[in-house]
Amino acid sequence: MLKEYDCWLQERKVTAKIKVPEVIYAQKGGEVCATAVRELSSGINRLLGFVPKVQKKADLKNSGVFLEFDSYLKPESFSISITENQILICAADDNGLLYGVFRFLFLLAQGKITHGLQINETPASPLRMINHWDNFDGTIERGYAGGSLFYKDGNFDFDNKRIEDYARLLASTGINRLSINNVNVRANAKLLITEKYLREAAKLAAIFRRYGIRLFISINFGAPWSLGKLETADPLDERVFAWWKERASIIYKYIPDLAGFLVKADSEGEPGPFQYERTHADGANMLAKAVKPFGGEIVWRCFVYNCQQDWRDHSFDRARAAYDHFMPLDGAFLENVILQIKFGPYDFQVREPVTPLFGALLKTRHVMELQITQEYTGHQIDLCFLPHVWQDIARFDIVNNENTERKFRIMDLIGKYKEGLSNIEGFASVVNVGLDNNWTGHTLAQANLYGYGRLTWNPQLSAKEIAQEWCALSFGEGETAKKIEDILLNSYPAYEKYNAPFGVCFMVTPNSHYGPNIEGYEFSRWGTYHRADANAIGIDRTPSGTGYTEQYSNENAAIFRDASRCPENLILFFHRLRYDFKMKNGNTLLQNIYDTHFEGYDETFKMAEDWKSLKDSLQKEVYESVLSRFEMQLINAKEWRDQINTYFFRKTGIPDNKNRKIFP
Amino acid sequence: MLKEYDCWLQERKVTAKIKVPEVIYAQKGGEVCATAVRELSSGINRLLGFVPKVQKKADLKNSGVFLEFDSYLKPESFSISITENQILICAADDNGLLYGVFRFLFLLAQGKITHGLQINETPASPLRMINHWDNFDGTIERGYAGGSLFYKDGNFDFDNKRIEDYARLLASTGINRLSINNVNVRANAKLLITEKYLREAAKLAAIFRRYGIRLFISINFGAPWSLGKLETADPLDERVFAWWKERASIIYKYIPDLAGFLVKADSEGEPGPFQYERTHADGANMLAKAVKPFGGEIVWRCFVYNCQQDWRDHSFDRARAAYDHFMPLDGAFLENVILQIKFGPYDFQVREPVTPLFGALLKTRHVMELQITQEYTGHQIDLCFLPHVWQDIARFDIVNNENTERKFRIMDLIGKYKEGLSNIEGFASVVNVGLDNNWTGHTLAQANLYGYGRLTWNPQLSAKEIAQEWCALSFGEGETAKKIEDILLNSYPAYEKYNAPFGVCFMVTPNSHYGPNIEGYEFSRWGTYHRADANAIGIDRTPSGTGYTEQYSNENAAIFRDASRCPENLILFFHRLRYDFKMKNGNTLLQNIYDTHFEGYDETFKMAEDWKSLKDSLQKEVYESVLSRFEMQLINAKEWRDQINTYFFRKTGIPDNKNRKIFP
Repeated sequence: MLKEYDCWLQERKVTAKIKVPEVIYAQKGGEVCATAVRELSSGINRLLGFVPKVQKKADLKNSGVFLEFDSYLKPESFSISITENQILICAADDNGLLYGVFRFLFLLAQGKITHGLQINETPASPLRMINHWDNFDGTIERGYAGGSLFYKDGNFDFDNKRIEDYARLLASTGINRLSINNVNVRANAKLLITEKYLREAAKLAAIFRRYGIRLFISINFGAPWSLGKLETADPLDERVFAWWKERASIIYKYIPDLAGFLVKADSEGEPGPFQYERTHADGANMLAKAVKPFGGEIVWRCFVYNCQQDWRDHSFDRARAAYDHFMPLDGAFLENVILQIKFGPYDFQVREPVTPLFGALLKTRHVMELQITQEYTGHQIDLCFLPHVWQDIARFDIVNNENTERKFRIMDLIGKYKEGLSNIEGFASVVNVGLDNNWTGHTLAQANLYGYGRLTWNPQLSAKEIAQEWCALSFGEGETAKKIEDILLNSYPAYEKYNAPFGVCFMVTPNSHYGPNIEGYEFSRWGTYHRADANAIGIDRTPSGTGYTEQYSNENAAIFRDASRCPENLILFFHRLRYDFKMKNGNTLLQNIYDTHFEGYDETFKMAEDWKSLKDSLQKEVYESVLSRFEMQLINAKEWRDQINTYFFRKTGIPDNKNRKIFP
Repeated sequence: MLKEYDCWLQERKVTAKIKVPEVIYAQKGGEVCATAVRELSSGINRLLGFVPKVQKKADLKNSGVFLEFDSYLKPESFSISITENQILICAADDNGLLYGVFRFLFLLAQGKITHGLQINETPASPLRMINHWDNFDGTIERGYAGGSLFYKDGNFDFDNKRIEDYARLLASTGINRLSINNVNVRANAKLLITEKYLREAAKLAAIFRRYGIRLFISINFGAPWSLGKLETADPLDERVFAWWKERASIIYKYIPDLAGFLVKADSEGEPGPFQYERTHADGANMLAKAVKPFGGEIVWRCFVYNCQQDWRDHSFDRARAAYDHFMPLDGAFLENVILQIKFGPYDFQVREPVTPLFGALLKTRHVMELQITQEYTGHQIDLCFLPHVWQDIARFDIVNNENTERKFRIMDLIGKYKEGLSNIEGFASVVNVGLDNNWTGHTLAQANLYGYGRLTWNPQLSAKEIAQEWCALSFGEGETAKKIEDILLNSYPAYEKYNAPFGVCFMVTPNSHYGPNIEGYEFSRWGTYHRADANAIGIDRTPSGTGYTEQYSNENAAIFRDASRCPENLILFFHRLRYDFKMKNGNTLLQNIYDTHFEGYDETFKMAEDWKSLKDSLQKEVYESVLSRFEMQLINAKEWRDQINTYFFRKTGIPDNKNRKIFP
């Protein structure tokens, strides 16, 4: 039976297809290598029910499980070879060994360790990062699974054992970086970079370090004046640089392997270089110089846009902002600066195009930001298996030239430098965990955390493969796991159908971002409008409108700007269309809105019924907690269905062509 | 120059039209009488610049200002007689003397004390009540003028001098009751009825007592279980009654003249008798019995409605709720129970009809609840002189029979028992004061506090009379006062014009209740919908709809149910109308919506300009603080104008017939 707390590292009786030797021979390494040995030993015990002996390195002629260093392998990579009487896990470094051990254990749990098996894996990207938006008061911005694992009442407050369990979960999927505090650095969090808190931060770092995870700290760009005694934070002021340099030297005394700083500047009210009429390159480079002597890096978020927009002004387009702000700076950043760019031009909407900075930036290091926490995707109340959309993002081809067979999909660009093309160095994502016993509030939302880690390791994985793995690891092989896999795979399409239609975005309740509020952002300062009137809806982002389409490659621009070629799930992102626009299925846009919303609810209903059919095969606690969330989701799906349908019915007076109930 | 803090009790050099004698002869009375003497003395000093001698009662042959008891007068009434060498202020009781003194000083300040003047005044209503929605943490629910005068950080925390100044201001307008805590009784406020806090409450009561003001305490109906050790708060459970009886005996030990309890029960989530399947009469009567031995009364709010409504259900009408809940209970309440009924069926909207319970309840004591704090009327940012709408409410005739000359207007019913007709015993209102130096945030909002007191004393007063009085008292006679009077009188019509059109209500931002959000409540649980579609807007409340009109007298029902007779400022409260409905001015409803919204902004602009013309005649601080609020109001008025106009333009596609700018 599933122990929610253990996630995908369940205790289970596995019948191995080979005889797993009872001795581990481990080469001597660092503390992560020691972790790998411990995890291998406890993992074998967890799955096979015996505790192997651990011995120092031995001759490869012996029978045994060998953990070996192999300097020919790439950083963090591993190989696994299964022979008659040996299991050989090789890596060039400690992290590689740990990842090899976890992969071995995952395969073992899935019954996939067979004679002759030979695996070589290299992580696609060197930066596989988790962002915590945890606040010092113990709350989490956009956290839906209880309080912070790290803080409470204005101070660090963590359970060593729980942090270690968390680090284990992350490392098992390949995560190697973690930022420990909210990018909105307010109140006590500003003091994190002072002695007052660094001692505790160092203890946290020590736990994660054992699992090969290095920490980032989110800093406040205004710290030289809000924390220090300077009257400015101007990045070109020598005193400001000196202040940061000294600060860095203190921080690195406590955490010598700190990965660096994460910075949200000039964004939604946070301070930044614009205050001093400096560029973001000026700001990021100054910090980069300050941490460089210590091997640190600056991750600089590109979520910069005018959040004081006037809805009356149709000429401004928030979707253009990231590109317009950062393209002119391509090449201006130092080599230890990494831009963190949200996958889409808006903000983690259910369906957005891939932001055109990917593929366009050629001379600037950058990572893609995803969102594991379900801010706009149902708050871990609604089931929403995110690898479904991550797969679509990964498959977006930034060039899309029909005349060449060569693909330039996002997944092809991750960690792979191609001449004249963007090199996406990895991923960052706000995480979905908190103090809830099952970590993620919704037990099935564990699959999103797992999936994110797997995807950062290997973006070629499909949503289906990830679902399969996670279900097998969590629920074992068999019918139950298969049914849950189907539920997972059905969940995103259902959620998308009952949400804002066809990529139009932001019909969600302001602030909370749960549930519908169709005109909630329509007259706001946030720049996210749909401008539905009696005849049409959407923003024209083609050259006849805001011209956003022209930020893409020629071929993509041509597709997006042509309503007949534009993918229909994004058509209202790019086009303003009349309700009687004929879609590919021959029905009008309006009828398609009705249809998808009826279907979205019906599919949710079916998921809940499918879950109910599992009652007898699941642990009561898991069954009931997930069921209670499905009950809430059904209410939410119904609200979305009815409010959207009523909204458009009231606008048009046109009934559903199948005569289903639309409330007047 | 105006001292904001002093409100309508300004220090000023007045040239009296008579010679005011320099001796006060005061009959011996209680402590309120002593206050009256002190106020008379300091008031004469304030206005005439000399301190009169105070002596014991003397023969009426002497020249002097006499404060005399006259047992022939009604409670709290007074008479003022001005003769050659005497000023005679008579009353039957201490409060009457105090009110007589303040009226004398008001008239003196306005230059209206003349030889031969003879005034007799009796307050229209015995219950002239202020409600504080102050929370123990120091915040005020719907407070827009700083923190609480009474509480801070979970405890009483008040400045004796400031409370005395507040009591003086209230008493000067005739207020005689005050509830000291929010009707939503939560957190520490529940403990107000325990020894822990009663000692401090008693100190507050002592200050107000000197000004003839008795306190109410808001209680939580669930206290027997949330505070006591009972497992129930069932009003028919003898243990519950015993608990309250004992509690009352403790409370009255500390505050022997406590007016009683104010209760919000079964309302917006607060506990109440419905939980135990008891009626509100059961609940109120139980408490009434508990306080009866101490002379206490129970004020029981009628703001009871289903706040979990499904917007899909058109059959339910929140407007019906007060009548539907309380009419069946008419006669079932004990004589020391007073129902507190909001003036309109919704919730202090800019324009609502008078709730039909007034006039219908014949056997139940009740008061009318108004709202001085500007929850829906601009948060004391926007200028909104509320006596304008209070005058309209006071003039509503509950019978409205054309065949009789006898009027049954609300103002005729206040405190006046008429055979077979409702007797409204007075008023209650949430106040608009806080710790701001000018008390009310917006200096001109002092006029609303003043006006409320004057109206409870004499509901026959017109808005213009109140504005005139207040301006003269605050700004002196002359051009400046006259201009400010005009600004005040123009403010409500302007606000109403740019707000939700024609009584449709609730197009305001949810929660905050400031600024427009046209569909903000459209799909909510609060039961306040306008259901605008492409052709029509409004709720049909005639017999063909929810039938709410039929809760009124025959004649009023006939008027309200007929769109051609219904007052146009309420037409969308009662009717669902097509946008092409022809209004009395010959234009369509839609064009009238456009017109009023353009005008509302223009009139606001004009008010701001008029204010600017006063720059040189006003104290800098007052001029600038009011100007900065006008600047914010202009932004708000513009948002209302543009969002409303755009909303209806998008719905209909019909442009303004004067071609003014409506944003698409």
